[in-house]
Amino acid sequence: MGSALAAAFLERGHPTTVWNRSQDKARPLADRGARAAATPEEALAASPLIVACVRDYEALYSVLDPVAGHLAGKVLVNLTSGSPEQAREAVAWAGSHGADYLDGAIMTTPPGVGSPDMMFLYSGAHTVFEAHRPALAALGDPLHLGTDPGLASLYDAALLGLMWATMTGWLHGTALVGAEDAAEGTAEKTAARAFTPLAIRWLTAVAGFLATYAPQVDAGRYPGDDATVDIQIAAIDHLIHAAAARGIDNALPELLKSAMERAKAAGHGNDSYASVIEVLKNPAVRK
Amino acid sequence: MGSALAAAFLERGHPTTVWNRSQDKARPLADRGARAAATPEEALAASPLIVACVRDYEALYSVLDPVAGHLAGKVLVNLTSGSPEQAREAVAWAGSHGADYLDGAIMTTPPGVGSPDMMFLYSGAHTVFEAHRPALAALGDPLHLGTDPGLASLYDAALLGLMWATMTGWLHGTALVGAEDAAEGTAEKTAARAFTPLAIRWLTAVAGFLATYAPQVDAGRYPGDDATVDIQIAAIDHLIHAAAARGIDNALPELLKSAMERAKAAGHGNDSYASVIEVLKNPAVRK
Ligand SMILES: NC(=O)c1ccc[n+]([C@@H]2O[C@H](COP(=O)([O-])OP(=O)(O)OC[C@H]3O[C@@H](n4cnc5c(N)ncnc54)[C@H](OP(=O)(O)O)[C@@H]3O)[C@@H](O)[C@H]2O)c1
Ligand SMILES: NC(=O)c1ccc[n+]([C@@H]2O[C@H](COP(=O)([O-])OP(=O)(O)OC[C@H]3O[C@@H](n4cnc5c(N)ncnc54)[C@H](OP(=O)(O)O)[C@@H]3O)[C@@H](O)[C@H]2O)c1
Repeated sequence: MGSALAAAFLERGHPTTVWNRSQDKARPLADRGARAAATPEEALAASPLIVACVRDYEALYSVLDPVAGHLAGKVLVNLTSGSPEQAREAVAWAGSHGADYLDGAIMTTPPGVGSPDMMFLYSGAHTVFEAHRPALAALGDPLHLGTDPGLASLYDAALLGLMWATMTGWLHGTALVGAEDAAEGTAEKTAARAFTPLAIRWLTAVAGFLATYAPQVDAGRYPGDDATVDIQIAAIDHLIHAAAARGIDNALPELLKSAMERAKAAGHGNDSYASVIEVLKNPAVRK
Repeated sequence: MGSALAAAFLERGHPTTVWNRSQDKARPLADRGARAAATPEEALAASPLIVACVRDYEALYSVLDPVAGHLAGKVLVNLTSGSPEQAREAVAWAGSHGADYLDGAIMTTPPGVGSPDMMFLYSGAHTVFEAHRPALAALGDPLHLGTDPGLASLYDAALLGLMWATMTGWLHGTALVGAEDAAEGTAEKTAARAFTPLAIRWLTAVAGFLATYAPQVDAGRYPGDDATVDIQIAAIDHLIHAAAARGIDNALPELLKSAMERAKAAGHGNDSYASVIEVLKNPAVRK
C-alpha cells in the first residue's frame, strides 16, 4: 500500500521522499523519481506533509517514536489501519511532539489508489484537512468526516464489515450455483465468472433497498410495504435447503435467519428487513 | 407482488385478466383496465400466457390443482418463490396437464416491477422463453438461465443470500456509526441517511473486488497481491472491538472472522479473501 501511495503522489508531480523498513521496496519508486531517504529522520526532514502507512500502530510507533523530535511543525497523516481509540491516542501523541495529525482510512486496494472514484476518509482538525486537501486528492477522493479523529477508523470498520459480509454472501452464492446437487446429480454448474455479473447487477438493486431503508432506520419505523421479514424468513429456508443439499457450509444463512427470527419475535414480522437493526443494537431484543 | 405484475402488463398495453383469492385486491387493477375473473377457471381461459405469483407452492397448487384440466395448451410462468426441487416438480406437474412451464424469480421489490433495470430470471425450455420474451419484458429485464427449470430458484436463493448478507452488514455498520461509545461518551453519532451514501459508493468498489476475485474462484488460485486474509483478520478485530464497546451484537463479524481464520488455517493466510470459498464449499476444511 505504501508503494501505491507514493506512486500516486509521483504520478501527480508531487516531490516525494520515501522510506520503508525493507529498503528494496523503495527502489522501483526511486526509478520513478522519488527521493529514497536512508533513515526515518531524513524522510521527516524532507517535507511538511508526512504520510505514514505501515502494518499497525505498533509498527508506526516503532518507526516514529525514536525520531519524534523531528515532527515539530509537521502534519502527520496516518493511513495505517487501527481503532478509533488508537487514532485518538495518536493525535495526542503527535500534539505532544508539536505536530498536527489527521487520521485516514483507505477505501480501496492498492490498484485503486490514485483514482478519483476511490474514497479516502479523513478525520481531525478541519483547517489541517483543508490545507492539505489538494495534495491528498492525488491519492483518491478525500472526504472529511469530522473533527473527532476516531471517525475515519470507525467508518472504516463499518464499511469493511459491509465488505466482508457482502464478499462472503457472494462467495456462498457462488459456491451454491457452482456446486453439484448430490441428490439430483445435475451437471448445471455455473462458473463464478458467469454468476458474478448478475451478482454485481443485483448489488445495484440492493443499494436501492439500502437507500429506501436508511430513513426508516433514522425514524425507527420500518413499514414493510415492499417485502416483510415474514416473507424473507420463508425465502431463506430455500437457500439453506439448497445449500445443504450441495454440502455447502450454512453458518452464514443460519445466522441471518436467526437475526430475522429475533426481529419477528420482537414484533417486526410485518415490517421491512431494516427492522433487523433493532436486534443488532438493542441487547434486550437479542435473546 | 401480483398487483405490481398485473399493473406492469397493463402499463405496456397487454390485455390482462386478473384473479386473486381476496377479490378486493383486484379492484384497483380493474380500474386500470384489467378484466377481473370471478374464478381461477375464468382466468385460465382468458389468455395463452398464465403468470402465477402467490405466497408459496402450497398456495399455487391449492389454486391450480382443482382447475388443472383447463391448463392444456397454455404456458404457465410461475413467479412464486420456491426451491429448485419444487420448480422441477412443477414442470412435470404442468406437463402432465398438457401445459408448458417456465420457472421465474423476481429480483426486485414491487416498486421496481416494470423497470428494464430489474432482473427477472427464467429457466425452462428455451423455445417457450423466446416465444414469450416480448410479453415478459413488460415486467423487467428477462434473463434466461438455462433449460433446467431449477436454475431460476437456485440463482434466486444465491442472490437473496447475497442481499441478506449485504443488508445485515450495512445494518451492523449503520448501528456502529450511529451508536454512542459507552467508554468515551462521544456524541458523534452518524445518521443512517448520512452513512448510507458512503456505503452505497463503497459497494461499487466492493463490486470491483468481486469482478477481480471471480476468475480466481474459477481457477482455484487466489493470489493475495491486493489484500491478504492475514491483513483482513487484523482489521476485523478493530470492527469487533469497536462494536463491542458500543453494545452492538457481534455475531456477524465473529462468524466472518472465524471463516477467515479457517481459511488461514487451511494455508490461505497470504491469499486473497476469495480463498474463503474453500472453507464454504469444502467440508474437510471446515473444522
Ligand atoms: N492492502 C490493502 O488493500 C489495504 C487497504 C486499506 C488499508 N490498508 C492498510 O494499510 C496498511 C498497510 O497494509 P499493506 O497492505 O501495505 O500491508 P503489507 O503489504 O503487509 O505491508 C506492511 C508494511 O508495514 C511495514 N512494517 C510492518 N512492520 C513494521 C515494523 N515493525 N517496523 C517498520 N515497518 C513495518 C512493512 O515494512 P517491510 O516492507 O519492511 O515489511 C510494510 O511496509 C495496513 O494498516 C492495512 O490495514 C491496506
Ligand atoms: N415482495 C417482494 O419483494 C417479492 C420479491 C420477489 C419475490 N416475491 C415472491 O412473490 C410471492 C408473493 O409475495 P408477495 O410479496 O406478493 O406476498 P403477499 O403480499 O403476502 O401476497 C401473497 C399472495 O399469495 C396469495 N395466497 C396466499 N395463500 C394463498 C392460498 N392458500 N390460496 C390462494 N392464494 C393465496 C395471497 O392472496 P390473498 O390476497 O387472498 O391473501 C396474495 O395474493 C412470494 O413467493 C414471494 O416470495 C416477493
